[in-house]
Amino acid sequence: MSSGDPHIHRKAKDFRWEGVEVLPYKEDDRALFKAITRQVLFSDPEQQSELRYFEVAPGGFSTLERHEHTHSVLILRGRGHCLVGNEVRPLGTNDLVAVPPMTWHQFRATQGEPLGFLCMVNSMRDKPQLPTDADLAALQSDPKIGAFLRG
Amino acid sequence: MSSGDPHIHRKAKDFRWEGVEVLPYKEDDRALFKAITRQVLFSDPEQQSELRYFEVAPGGFSTLERHEHTHSVLILRGRGHCLVGNEVRPLGTNDLVAVPPMTWHQFRATQGEPLGFLCMVNSMRDKPQLPTDADLAALQSDPKIGAFLRG
Repeated sequence: MSSGDPHIHRKAKDFRWEGVEVLPYKEDDRALFKAITRQVLFSDPEQQSELRYFEVAPGGFSTLERHEHTHSVLILRGRGHCLVGNEVRPLGTNDLVAVPPMTWHQFRATQGEPLGFLCMVNSMRDKPQLPTDADLAALQSDPKIGAFLRG
Repeated sequence: MSSGDPHIHRKAKDFRWEGVEVLPYKEDDRALFKAITRQVLFSDPEQQSELRYFEVAPGGFSTLERHEHTHSVLILRGRGHCLVGNEVRPLGTNDLVAVPPMTWHQFRATQGEPLGFLCMVNSMRDKPQLPTDADLAALQSDPKIGAFLRG
C-alpha cells in the first residue's frame, strides 16, 4: 500500500462520506419509492459483499420488494418502521434487521426524522422482484400491514 | 419465514444487541491486545460476509496484525486512532477505514472514550499474522508509528 493512500480513510460528516457519491436510490423506473438516497461505502473486488448506506427522508420509503439474496441491516440514523414478511417493527438507532430470502420488505421514515441504514449484501445477487396486484392485496389483507403501506 | 421470527429484528441498547453474545476478542493466546470485546451481528450462511462489532475501552487496543483478507470498517461509537500500513489516522464516528491485503493495522481508543467499530469481512478468510521482532522494529523506526504503538 502506498503511503498517503486516500482510500484507507474516508471521513464522515453528517452521514456523508469523503469521496462517496450520493446516488439515486434505484435505476429501475418501475419501482415505487420516495425520498431515498444511496451511498456505496464499500464495494471492493477483494470483498464478497458490499456495504451501502441508504437514507430515507421524513415521510419517505424504500421499494416494497423481495429477492433470493438476503439483506443484513443496521440502523445508523434516526427511527422508523420496517415491514419484513408479516412483521411490522418499530426501529431505533443501531437496531439490526435481517431480511430472509424471498421475503417482502420495506423501510419507512415514519417518525418525522430521517431514517438511515447500512445494508450488507452479497456482491453477486439476483434482481429484486416487485409485488403484483395480487401480492399487494394479500399483504393489505392484514390490517397492520395495510396501515404500514399507507404510511 | 414464520410470523414472529425473533431473528428478523434485534433491538440495540447501549451498543449491545438482543440475543447477541459479548465475546472475548480473540482465542489466539499469542496475540497482544487490551480491553476489547467482540459481538457477531450477522453471520448467516446465505451471506458471503460477516459483520462484527468490536469495542475498545479507553486506553485499549486491537491486535497489531496483517492478513490476505481485507477489512471494511465503519466507526460506530466514539473516537480514536488507527494504524493502516504507514498511516496513523485520527478517527471520528461514522468514518470509514479500508484495510488492504497484507497491511499492518491496529485500532486504539486514544481519546478517553470507547472506540466501537463495525468490521465487514469475507466469511472464508485466512488467519491473521502477528509481527516478528524485525517487523516491529521496522514499524517503530517511523517516529509517528512508534508513538502510536506506545499509546
